Amino acid sequence: MIQFRPILLALGLMVCLVAVAMLAPMALDFADSHSSWRTFAASALVTLFVGVLMVLFAYDRRPVRAGLREAFLLTTLCWTLVSVFAAIPFVGLGLPLADAVFESVSALTTTGATVIANLDGQPRGILLWRALLQGIGGLGIIVVAILILPFLRIGGMQLFQTESSDRSEKVVPRARQLVGSICGVFLGLLLACVITFLLLGMTPFDAICHALSTVATGGFSTHDASFGYFQSASLHWAAVFFMICGALPFVLYIKAMRGDVQALWRDEQVRGFMLLLAAASFAISIWLIAARGLHYADAVTLATFNVVSVVTTTGFTAHDFASWGPFAVGVFFVLLFIGGCSGSTCGGIKIYRLQVASLLTRSHLQHLISPNRIVPLTYNGRRLPEDVPFSVVAFFAVYMATIGMFTLVLCAMGLDLVTALSGAATAVSNVGPGLGSIIGPAGTFADLPAGAKWVLSAAMLLGRLELFTVLVLFRPEFWRG
Amino acid sequence: MIQFRPILLALGLMVCLVAVAMLAPMALDFADSHSSWRTFAASALVTLFVGVLMVLFAYDRRPVRAGLREAFLLTTLCWTLVSVFAAIPFVGLGLPLADAVFESVSALTTTGATVIANLDGQPRGILLWRALLQGIGGLGIIVVAILILPFLRIGGMQLFQTESSDRSEKVVPRARQLVGSICGVFLGLLLACVITFLLLGMTPFDAICHALSTVATGGFSTHDASFGYFQSASLHWAAVFFMICGALPFVLYIKAMRGDVQALWRDEQVRGFMLLLAAASFAISIWLIAARGLHYADAVTLATFNVVSVVTTTGFTAHDFASWGPFAVGVFFVLLFIGGCSGSTCGGIKIYRLQVASLLTRSHLQHLISPNRIVPLTYNGRRLPEDVPFSVVAFFAVYMATIGMFTLVLCAMGLDLVTALSGAATAVSNVGPGLGSIIGPAGTFADLPAGAKWVLSAAMLLGRLELFTVLVLFRPEFWRG
Repeated sequence: MIQFRPILLALGLMVCLVAVAMLAPMALDFADSHSSWRTFAASALVTLFVGVLMVLFAYDRRPVRAGLREAFLLTTLCWTLVSVFAAIPFVGLGLPLADAVFESVSALTTTGATVIANLDGQPRGILLWRALLQGIGGLGIIVVAILILPFLRIGGMQLFQTESSDRSEKVVPRARQLVGSICGVFLGLLLACVITFLLLGMTPFDAICHALSTVATGGFSTHDASFGYFQSASLHWAAVFFMICGALPFVLYIKAMRGDVQALWRDEQVRGFMLLLAAASFAISIWLIAARGLHYADAVTLATFNVVSVVTTTGFTAHDFASWGPFAVGVFFVLLFIGGCSGSTCGGIKIYRLQVASLLTRSHLQHLISPNRIVPLTYNGRRLPEDVPFSVVAFFAVYMATIGMFTLVLCAMGLDLVTALSGAATAVSNVGPGLGSIIGPAGTFADLPAGAKWVLSAAMLLGRLELFTVLVLFRPEFWRG
Repeated sequence: MIQFRPILLALGLMVCLVAVAMLAPMALDFADSHSSWRTFAASALVTLFVGVLMVLFAYDRRPVRAGLREAFLLTTLCWTLVSVFAAIPFVGLGLPLADAVFESVSALTTTGATVIANLDGQPRGILLWRALLQGIGGLGIIVVAILILPFLRIGGMQLFQTESSDRSEKVVPRARQLVGSICGVFLGLLLACVITFLLLGMTPFDAICHALSTVATGGFSTHDASFGYFQSASLHWAAVFFMICGALPFVLYIKAMRGDVQALWRDEQVRGFMLLLAAASFAISIWLIAARGLHYADAVTLATFNVVSVVTTTGFTAHDFASWGPFAVGVFFVLLFIGGCSGSTCGGIKIYRLQVASLLTRSHLQHLISPNRIVPLTYNGRRLPEDVPFSVVAFFAVYMATIGMFTLVLCAMGLDLVTALSGAATAVSNVGPGLGSIIGPAGTFADLPAGAKWVLSAAMLLGRLELFTVLVLFRPEFWRG
């Protein structure tokens, strides 16, 4: 039997946390003497009320043994429920329901696709709320990716089982310690990012909001021109640095802090990720210089910023890269699928899955040439566990099938192929901007039909939870004994 | 050491065969009193001369033991070399080199994408030549898919090892017998198709050319309007029937002829294929009736014809389906990747790979829920060999990566994203038409830059040889001892 009580308790606590978080934009709007502080106050009250009710109803002194099924259910319900409550202020401020939920899901999944067309004219409270939700979502997914997903063995994540994800008696204290370390690293990066942005000339408000977006690889900005609002190369490079920081496996930071500083450079995933960023930035830079006649310094800055933004699945834009001609569009289209490192805030297929796939391909080719020679597969210096290839193929196939299905549904709603396909890909990969004239880097998701916003919200959630966390819930065995 | 002599001998024989085949269009143009018969005569002479030279140089009475490597090399060289010689008449008739090779590769890989814009104005010889090349390419790929690929274990093809693909002493006589049966089935289907087309009102010339295109799932027509030239629903349904016949696993026909008639219906691949055709045709029919206001009989005919044409990777078009609105475009885009059954003339990922991937996904989901329960994977009533999942994941990953890379290259040549992506997909899957205004169902590949034609020719060859047959040649181990 699935234990619903501990799930409800955890969900209740999360909802209370959301209510507390609403106090920050409330205070800001109150200080700005903007009437929207009332909306946040009311939203916080309603949310807190429901949260406390849930906690009271579920609280029980007896110890509980939660297992696999509870972890699956909790993870999915948590993102869904928090998205619903986090959408309340958006509804209060006048967004239609589909738009409010889309914006809230986009923030909590750190996608960063927005339906708000006039950001520069909004009260600061709502901008802070969007930024805060990204921070919460980013920190949340790192905790889930490091503590829960490896234990659930989602899509080959068993590769990343740490000592804390085995099921020994000491799990809970170790897990607490790990969560503490993750929060510490995240807040440390955030603080460093805020200070850097301040020193390079941002206002304190912009610095805080953009730092939350950057470290969580979310992509919401406080300006309609996104990061392009800041016409400063040093700010762009600072953002590049912190987007990459947010996209690296957080476990490696913890290892580095414990003395193993080289861990970051020895990791195969990090190396592959850096190589990809360098190669794509180089290709786009050359294209911008040769085909579009940009000055070489501008070309390198713009190319690197936008490539890093898409690959880390942040989704800031520093320029309308869709106007850079077909080659750039092709590159960004392919990059939409890839994503960053596992155990970070990135979405997408992720580097390690591509590396495992390429490992399998090389091994398959060797096997074709010499059928009797058996070469053991090693990744990151360790032998690849036997079930990893299976998990990776399943993930690949389901990832492509999911994007294909969402594309079909969006096409059926009347979207053209480029919008539907890039929209599905950018949502499932949690990147942010799509391609085409509507949802491209210069556009917003505001003009899509309401149905498409619901569909894309579902796509973002599915992608954020690595598909399988949600899909297991649809298997009858899950609900049987 | 790789034995080059037997490879050269086999290639020489193939080249001689091509020379002999050129006599048919020569005779036709001579009978039509069209001067182009001289081109075919000259081409045949040159080709025969080179072929005979190769055979004489390579002939040796000593028995040879050809193995794996020779089979890989022969398969790749065979398609490349035959394409080059088959292109000679096209060059002779005035096509630029890139166009001539594209047309010849497109025919021999049974893709059916054409660069000849004015088909109705061409001499009949060249139209027959295009049709014949499709027949040769179709028959050739079935022989390779049944006899050679399972033995090479390409991309999970070991699933289809027949008694003749093991390496016992009796291989050669059994293989001869199997090739005989395959040719028999192919010619039987061809004859049935010609007669049906004749009875339904085609001219003898059109019937022969279209039968070759249909049974080989190629897609070249003798008219610019493709199959849409024939305004007869019964002809469309006849083509649907024979395209499906060409897309089924030929081994099952042989089983059926040996008495096991039910083999065709019991096969999981065939069932999945039929289900897919039915579902996609149904969806498009409903769309055409509901959204485009077509009469229901017309809608069902047009939808089924175009769906079957794309899924069987034939590529005939009966209507400009790109004008059917975004949903139809989305469906046809997704269908471009799928392909038909293994061991037939179809390209694409193929149904059995999708079935294996879905099997792995289901098993992965079960494993996530109950990590300790081990459920053996069975396909078509047999246990899945251990290395099949590996091979399938490798194929999937390389397939997607190949399409991604070709898309990037085509974008770099200035093609827009839809043209580049659908062009890469249609070429690697050997379908024929792409999407967008240039290479869509109403267009041709004639207007592409010459570079893009070379790139797409390479893509068609790679796709036809299931990628790995070619890719192994690039591994250093292949050439070492």
